[in-house]
Order: sequence, then structure tokens, then C-alpha cells
Amino acid sequence: MPQLLSLLLVAAALLASPSAALVQDFCVADLKSADTPAGYPCKSVTTVTVEDFAFAGLGVPGNTTNIIKAAVTPAFVGQFPGFNGLGLSMARLDLALGGVIPLHTHPAASEVLFVAQGTICAGFISSGANKVYLKSLNRGEIMVFPQGLLHFQFNSGKGPALGFVAFSSHNPGLQITDFALFANDLPSEVVEKVTFLDDAQVKKLKGVLGGSG
Amino acid sequence: MPQLLSLLLVAAALLASPSAALVQDFCVADLKSADTPAGYPCKSVTTVTVEDFAFAGLGVPGNTTNIIKAAVTPAFVGQFPGFNGLGLSMARLDLALGGVIPLHTHPAASEVLFVAQGTICAGFISSGANKVYLKSLNRGEIMVFPQGLLHFQFNSGKGPALGFVAFSSHNPGLQITDFALFANDLPSEVVEKVTFLDDAQVKKLKGVLGGSG
Amino acid sequence: MPQLLSLLLVAAALLASPSAALVQDFCVADLKSADTPAGYPCKSVTTVTVEDFAFAGLGVPGNTTNIIKAAVTPAFVGQFPGFNGLGLSMARLDLALGGVIPLHTHPAASEVLFVAQGTICAGFISSGANKVYLKSLNRGEIMVFPQGLLHFQFNSGKGPALGFVAFSSHNPGLQITDFALFANDLPSEVVEKVTFLDDAQVKKLKGVLGGSG
Amino acid sequence: MPQLLSLLLVAAALLASPSAALVQDFCVADLKSADTPAGYPCKSVTTVTVEDFAFAGLGVPGNTTNIIKAAVTPAFVGQFPGFNGLGLSMARLDLALGGVIPLHTHPAASEVLFVAQGTICAGFISSGANKVYLKSLNRGEIMVFPQGLLHFQFNSGKGPALGFVAFSSHNPGLQITDFALFANDLPSEVVEKVTFLDDAQVKKLKGVLGGSG
Amino acid sequence: MPQLLSLLLVAAALLASPSAALVQDFCVADLKSADTPAGYPCKSVTTVTVEDFAFAGLGVPGNTTNIIKAAVTPAFVGQFPGFNGLGLSMARLDLALGGVIPLHTHPAASEVLFVAQGTICAGFISSGANKVYLKSLNRGEIMVFPQGLLHFQFNSGKGPALGFVAFSSHNPGLQITDFALFANDLPSEVVEKVTFLDDAQVKKLKGVLGGSG
Amino acid sequence: MPQLLSLLLVAAALLASPSAALVQDFCVADLKSADTPAGYPCKSVTTVTVEDFAFAGLGVPGNTTNIIKAAVTPAFVGQFPGFNGLGLSMARLDLALGGVIPLHTHPAASEVLFVAQGTICAGFISSGANKVYLKSLNRGEIMVFPQGLLHFQFNSGKGPALGFVAFSSHNPGLQITDFALFANDLPSEVVEKVTFLDDAQVKKLKGVLGGSG
Repeated sequence: MPQLLSLLLVAAALLASPSAALVQDFCVADLKSADTPAGYPCKSVTTVTVEDFAFAGLGVPGNTTNIIKAAVTPAFVGQFPGFNGLGLSMARLDLALGGVIPLHTHPAASEVLFVAQGTICAGFISSGANKVYLKSLNRGEIMVFPQGLLHFQFNSGKGPALGFVAFSSHNPGLQITDFALFANDLPSEVVEKVTFLDDAQVKKLKGVLGGSG
Repeated sequence: MPQLLSLLLVAAALLASPSAALVQDFCVADLKSADTPAGYPCKSVTTVTVEDFAFAGLGVPGNTTNIIKAAVTPAFVGQFPGFNGLGLSMARLDLALGGVIPLHTHPAASEVLFVAQGTICAGFISSGANKVYLKSLNRGEIMVFPQGLLHFQFNSGKGPALGFVAFSSHNPGLQITDFALFANDLPSEVVEKVTFLDDAQVKKLKGVLGGSG
Repeated sequence: MPQLLSLLLVAAALLASPSAALVQDFCVADLKSADTPAGYPCKSVTTVTVEDFAFAGLGVPGNTTNIIKAAVTPAFVGQFPGFNGLGLSMARLDLALGGVIPLHTHPAASEVLFVAQGTICAGFISSGANKVYLKSLNRGEIMVFPQGLLHFQFNSGKGPALGFVAFSSHNPGLQITDFALFANDLPSEVVEKVTFLDDAQVKKLKGVLGGSG
Repeated sequence: MPQLLSLLLVAAALLASPSAALVQDFCVADLKSADTPAGYPCKSVTTVTVEDFAFAGLGVPGNTTNIIKAAVTPAFVGQFPGFNGLGLSMARLDLALGGVIPLHTHPAASEVLFVAQGTICAGFISSGANKVYLKSLNRGEIMVFPQGLLHFQFNSGKGPALGFVAFSSHNPGLQITDFALFANDLPSEVVEKVTFLDDAQVKKLKGVLGGSG
Repeated sequence: MPQLLSLLLVAAALLASPSAALVQDFCVADLKSADTPAGYPCKSVTTVTVEDFAFAGLGVPGNTTNIIKAAVTPAFVGQFPGFNGLGLSMARLDLALGGVIPLHTHPAASEVLFVAQGTICAGFISSGANKVYLKSLNRGEIMVFPQGLLHFQFNSGKGPALGFVAFSSHNPGLQITDFALFANDLPSEVVEKVTFLDDAQVKKLKGVLGGSG
Repeated sequence: MPQLLSLLLVAAALLASPSAALVQDFCVADLKSADTPAGYPCKSVTTVTVEDFAFAGLGVPGNTTNIIKAAVTPAFVGQFPGFNGLGLSMARLDLALGGVIPLHTHPAASEVLFVAQGTICAGFISSGANKVYLKSLNRGEIMVFPQGLLHFQFNSGKGPALGFVAFSSHNPGLQITDFALFANDLPSEVVEKVTFLDDAQVKKLKGVLGGSG
């Protein structure tokens, strides 16, 4: 067995060389550096600890005392830098009685929803045939929403509901249709022109959502 | 020079072998076979001709005598099988005076618009900051619309306009928000719940677009 | 408003054409066809229903009355064809008191673990610096395991634990080190040569796990 | 409706948080930073305006008073930073009577040509079967050139021709075979050895194209 | 230890289920099926043996008694189906004294050359700056040729040379510039127009390489 | 011919413009900058020479006077920056009589082994069916190891053996199972829990490999 000790030399040669730090097992985001099309530059591996790979934020219920009676708590790369470059992220959905996650897309990811509590009605609409895929999901059920398609979730049960979603990107994006249309300075006449909505409807929602124009 | 003739033997060995047909320079779609996540199976290379790589459909003006005074003529893989697997597709946009391409997304591609005639006002909305990027484009100008984001185009000039768009996928998809919401059987109460639109507005547009529920 | 009716014509032109079915919003796996490097061929879109996108199997607790006091219930593309080509899959981890998910890798995916109940100690080992990243996770905490690295999870609490994991591939694979070494006909002398384990140890585990040779 | 105002709180929570700027809807190139294998680092989103997504350079005819009677005006990421990471770029081809775009490849992209004016004869050669795909294209026709294959375009009409091309990469590259062989210091004897061209031919073209050696 | 036997039940549950065959560890090409953009459909895993992953063809010297005094022996997916979908392939280069691998590109892959015997002079030309990267390599040296760029290799030593190359694709393609120009029916006037070569030169090489037109 | 001189103007316009340096034909790693998920930032192209694309380190036999009687000499991006972003890397395997490359995985790449001298027995184990693919390879034979799967190589001949391996990534990683388990501070009780190895076995190997805990 003494001769086995020389395995250490091999290990040293392979693993303790100056190049060892150059092996990219992971790339924890350095959020202070500029992003790139593939993700953030990596935090130096010598400063990485297990805390960079763990995140407690999804364990905290979101505040649902708002108009949608719902809250989305993201764990995207911006909140959880350990996801950088790994093709994954998550979010927590809290839905009080009657709560709704409004119509939205994730421009850069597919999504899977896991229902942890209550009953959630979820749906998406295909672009090819404009078809609705709608289903009420109970605790333990999952549903997948293909990349980029319009979808929504709402509490269809008799008590609070809780869901967790995972995405196929560290930065899936979240574009809520109402916010895109009514919560900015996109002129009302443009909104009307491209949506066929009535002027009164547009102005009402712009008023509610803080939009101008 | 006679000895150069033996180059033919090398060519034969390399190129005329039974394996030559197995080299995948391209993969013209066999649309009769089932699609795969990466695109359609390839038509046999022995039956491929230059006609598989050319397409005349974008040279024909679309019919704009409709409510949007506009027409979209796609050259996606379904229309032009030569694009299969090459990460590209195109479409033609005809916009009569006042014409509009309504709010929409391409779930699987970025897009670049080239204005060939007239003036087109185009815009997209970011998901991160909910910001509007809006610009009036003259002939010869191009604008890029990042993948999956809501965008629109409308004729902002004093005559007809013509645009051509290219996409970063052979199958970009096209999801028109109004059609997704109002041209199918998605129940009105669900539409209202996830968009905050008024019941009258939803029913009006469902009526116009042929939706039910 | 009557003129709005012509929108239907545009919709028809765009969406009801024979090509509409060729738009690939999703690609539900036809598991009876041969797989490809990018995933299974797609089930015909005309036979796809919302049931293809939903899965109830993760709602059922796994049977933990076994030696590892644990169970892994996968929702990979083989169990849930709706994941095909979408870069996502899931699994359920049931861990009775003292339960263990043995050392393993997923050759084709990164993984994120969400702790739904109890306390789970999880760890992975880097290849570059051979460093251990080990942490005890409580309910609501998540941890990410970068692609291809050896990792494990075990119940470190005082009652049963429950976890859900998501992967960055529809087919992440699961290679349990012990099964790879001891549950097949890999000759003992080869196992010993490539692992430095003692002969008695190898034969003991081969016996337990049903291996031969 | 007053209660709707609280939607702003949700919007604020989701969109106005410090993390909002971290969502990567796009990544306009910061050309002053070092490139990466996936593209340039992103310009700070707070300084991005619609002008970053629009480009007027393709509206200007190229100067064709040269030996090839043609001009290529690129809109690659180096000229149009808004393309960075989006898998797209463009170029304008001006072809005077008799104009030619010489034999070339794009090492990193497929290309589609749209003929905007005149008649352009275009061709590519397959590597597998060494087959020529050659076609004369009129106004409105498109042709696709699969990634990395040798191709060319020339004016085959009786007046000037104009084309626009799109690529499946923000940085397709452009390797003109003649320039690669004759416009640098690659020794003539090497050129002759690897092309079988005669010495006189090589020296003549080196002379014309400014090559040495 | 008897209780350890129940591990088999877990193994059975995980690995011996009908779904086990659906896990895609590899995808040996079924060359009789139509190719797809991502590679060939997979041979049934139940018929796969270790012979599908091994290949002896590169151990056999190529015949160099030809005009280029060289031979290329490919192990692409067409010859070695085990490479399918794995992003790798290889080839053997035999170079007799004075042997040459003529100017060529691989449209779909980068390449690394390992010199196993003799001395090989290799070079490639960049597209951006049209710069030559040329080097004489001795036994044991490697050189990388970035994707899609023109390159060549020739024996620059005093005896036979042997090289092995690996590619970053299972189907890299091989486009030899001379064969593309002179070994098919591309009309001489087109060749001359797009290369600036003299008519006599073109016809001479067409004659040698069997081209017509 | 004088008029041909104006080709230089085209070349100048295309290639000598300030943008020419922005064309990414390659991206030699600047190892002093932080890595990104897609690889290192590029060294300035103006300082790149052919030496950046060549590497002599694989020509030097590794020192096999150690317990495994073997040596692995890597040419990953950390040793050979020219591989950056090109989807390739290599390594040299020296195996003295009885030499062994212990059980390991490459988390981010598939591998192909070429036997240059002697006889090497190589094997990998599938995850799906837990099946062993084992073969003795002679000089000139190659074998492919699919991404992420456990594999090993050992000298099964009567003299020294030499192999070269290529990988489908510039940074394949190398995780030797024994080092991951026994060469760090992973507590023995955790190792035993997740591997079912006996305490004595674990402590013996931890002792040999320098592990603690």
C-alpha cells in the first residue's frame, strides 16, 4: 500500500496544477460584470462556496394582498447567481383565493409547473392552430408550457394555492401582456391600432397600471 | 499532366463512395414525415434539385383588402422546405395605407425587418423593464426584434408599404395576441380574469374574430 | 364593425392553411418511433390534447420500504412525452427517515432540488478542484447541481423528507455509481483495477446488487 | 377599480426591482469589450435606446465602380451591435451590369438571398456529392445557401441588380477564396501545391490582388 | 446484509422498467433511416453492442499512389455510426513524401490535427483579416483549424508522414476547393467569372479532374 | 489587367475596415480574464499568431512511475487556449505495463480514444440499462465514450501503451470517482452512506489518497 501514496502525485499533477482552476464545472454569475449572450462571467472559483449553489428565497410566501391576489417570487440568475449557464431557473407562485397570474410569456424558456397546494387552473395557447390547452391541476400534478407561448394560471380551488415552476433557462424572462401594453408610455392610439381594443378600455387600463400616452 | 488523372481516384475514393450521400450539407425537409425537435427528416439527397433551395412565393403581393389592410406571406419551413435545419426563414409584409401587423410574438426566433417601400412604424416592448422601443423606419432601414418579445408594425406613411423579415429559425412561429385571446374557445371569463379586460370588450372582439365561449 | 369580420380571412390565411399544422410550437414525443439525437419524432398535432402536457405521476409517494429507504419517481420524456424537446424534466424524491439517494450523476443535465418537506442533506463534488459542496437544506430551500458532477442526497432530519427536482433536459439520464459498478457483469478484477477497491468489498456489493463476474 | 391600483405594487415588485435590469431580453454589443465565443458583452441596458436596434446603412447603395462591378455592404455585429447574440445579420449586395460577388463561404452561417431588383444568378456546390446548384433568380425570389458551402452570385440581367441577404449568425464571416489565396503572403509555391494552379496564374492573381510571396 | 437485497427492487424500479430503454445515453445511427438536422435516428438500444462504439478503419494506411501522394480515410458518422449525435468524428491522413491534402474546408466543424509520424506543414487563412497561419509540425504536435476556414496540410519532411484529425461534429463535411470548381459541370465561364482564373487554367484543371462545361 | 487593381479597393472596403477585426473566425482564450458559460473572452486578434493554434505538449511522454502506472496529459483550454469556443480538446494517455486510467467521467463532453501503441482495454457503462461496453483495442483502433458516462482504460497488453483522446468540448472536465470520494474532506460516514462501502474500505482509501474526515 505505501506505493499507493504516489496516487497523490497523479492527483497533484492533474488536479493541483495551476490549470485546475480553469476547469469549468460551473460558472457562478458575477452579477457586477456585464452580461454576455451566454450568461454572466464567472465569479472566481476560489471564492465560490456551497452557499452560491443554495437559495432560500422560494421558501418565503409572497405577499398576495394585491389586486391579482397572487405573487411571483423569482429565482432567476439575477436572484440566484448559481443558476448561471446551467439552463435552469425557478419561481414560486402564491395564489390566494381567486388569485391570478395574468397572461404572459417567457421569451427564452419552456416552463413546468408543479402544484404544491390547492388547485390551479392553467392554460396555454398554441400559435400554429390557435388552440387552447386548459386544465385544472391538483396537488402533485405538473403541466408544461412550451417556450414563448402565451399562458396563465389562476386559483380554481376553494383555498389558497401554491405552485413552483422551473424554467429551461437561467434567465427565462417574464413578459406580462397587460404590463407590456398598459404600464408604459406606448401611445394609446398605437395600443388600439395593434390590439383592436377600444379607446376607453385602453385608457382605463393605462390608468390602473400607471401607463401614460 | 497525365499523372494528374489519378486525382480522380482520390475524388472517387472520397466523394463517389456509398458514404458520400451520407454527408449532411443540408437537410431539405420531407414534410410528409413526422417533425422532430430539431426539424423534419431530410428528403433523399438524390432527389434534391436547385428548386428545393429557391422559392418564388415572396415575390407575390399579399391581398391587403381586409380589416388590417395588411398581409403576411410566410416562407417558413412549411412553405419552403429548403430552410429545414438551417436556422433561417423569411416572410413578406404588405401594408396598404393604414395597414397594421397586430401585436404578436415569434416564440422561437428573433426577427429583422427590412423596409423595401414606404414607411413602417415598428416597436417592441422589453420584458425586463417593460420599456417601449418604437421607431418609424424608411426605405432601406432595418430593425431587429429580440426573440419572443411582443412587437408590431404598422404603415405610418402616405402610401403602401412593403417589408421583408428574416427569422433566426426555420420555424419561428407566429402568435398574434388577439387571435390567441379572441379567436378560439377560451372562455370569456378566463380571458377577462387573465387580462383585466371588460366583459363587453372581450365579447365584442370574440364576436369579430369568431371566438366562442 | 362588420368590416372587422374580414380579420377572419387573415386568420384563415395565416392559421387555417394546410401549413398551420407544420408550425412547431411543441413536439409531444411519439415514443413508438425511434429516438433521434434531439429527441423523439413528434406525435401528430391533430391528436395532441391538454392531457399530453399534464402528468399526475409525481403526486404519488414512492415506496420507501427498501434498503435505501428512498424512492425516485421520474418524469422524464419516457414517462411524460410532453417534455420532448423542451429542455426540461422532473422527478420526485421520497426519503423515509434515514433514506438515501446514492451517489450518482446525470450525464446530460444540470439539476435543481426543491425541498418540499423535512430536511435533506445534499452535496456534489467538483471535478476541477475535487472540492465538496455539502449543505443541509430545509423546507423551501433549493440547491443546484451542475451538469455531470457526482452528487447525492440523504434525509438528515428527524422525519420523512420529500423533494422535487427539475432537470435541464428532457432526458437527463441517471447513473448510480454503485449500480454501474456492482449490478452488472463487469468483471470484479476490472472493478478492482479501476477503483482500487478490495476484492472482498467488490464481491460483497456485487452479491448484494445482483452483479456477476 | 381603486383596488386595481395595487397591480402597480406587483409590477413594482416584479419589474422595478434592482434585479429587473438583470433580465436579458437582448444584449446589444459593447464592441469596446473583448468578444467571447457567444458574442460581445452587453452594453448596459440603461443606456440602450431604440437606435441600438435600428440601422440605416443598408439603404445606401454600395459603390460598384470597381473590377467586380459589385459591392457588399455588411450589417454584421461589428456594424450593427443590436444583432449581438440574436442569431441574425444582414448584408446588401449591389451588382452593376456584369457585377460579380466572387466565390466565397461564410464559415459560421447559412444565408438567404432576396432579389430586390434585376436578375441574379446564384449557385452553391455541395461537399458530399460535389454537385452544383445553380439558378437565375428574378425580383422577389429567394435562395438559401447552406452553412459553410462555397457559393457565388452574379448579375445575369440586362441592368443593375440589388439583393439583400440574411444570415443565421450575428457574425457569419466572409471568406472570399481569391482573397484567401492571392491577397496575402501565402507563398506561391504553397498556393500551387494545395490548388494545382499554375505558377503563372498564381503570380498573376497575386499581382492583381496585392499578395506577396 | 439480507436487507440490502431490496436494493435490487429499487434498481428494478428505476432501471428494468419498460422506460429504461427510453433513456438516451447514446444514439448509434440507423443509417438506413432518413437523416435529420440533428443526426440519424437511433438504432434500437437492444441491438447495440460494444462493436457499435469501436472502429478499426483508421488503423489501415490509405493508398498514397496517386497524384496528391496522400489519402484521407474518414471516420465520420457514415463510416462509424457510433459517433451519431456525439459531436465528434475523426479521419486518418496518410502523406507520402511530397504528399498534399489540397485546400479545403469543413463546413460544419472545427478540426484538430495530431502528427503521428514525420513532419506536416499546415496552414489556415482567416476571413476577417485574410491572414495566413502556417506552421511546420513535428511528431506529437497538434494544430487546430477553426470552423469553416480554408486550410491545407502537406508533407514537409523527408519521409512519409501520418496524421490523425478529430472534428467537432459527427458529420463535418469536406469541401475540396479544386473538386468544387473543376470536378463537376459548373460552366467554365462561371468558374472564371467568380474566381478570376484564366480560361486555359480552368479548362486544364477541368480536364484533369473530369469536369465538364 | 490594370483595372483589376481596383479589386484591392473592394478588399480594402471589406477587409481592412475598422470592423474587420470584429469578425470572429476564432477566439483564442485570454485566460487572465474571467471565464463565461461559453468560454473565455478572446485575446485581441492583433496579437494572435500561429503559435496560438499549435501545441507541443502532447508530444512529451507522461511520467508513469506512479501507482496507476499511467499519466494523463491534458490539452484542454487551460493548457491550449487556441481550443477556446471551438468544441474540441485533446489529451495524451501514457500507460506503462499494467497501467490504469481509473474510473472517471467527463461531465461536459463525449470522448474518442485512438490507440497509438500497444493494447488498451476500454469500457463504459450505460445509465439506461446499466450495461457494460468493454473492448480490447489494438493499435489504430478507436472507441467512443458518450458524454457523461463512467468509463476507464487500462493497458491489457504486454508492453507500454499509448493513446490519444479527443473531446467534444474545449473544457470537458475530468472527474475521477476515487478522487471525488477519497481525496477530500467528504466525511467518511457520508461516503459510506451514499456508496454502501464499508468503513474500513473508505478509511483505507482516504488514507492512501490523502482525504480527511
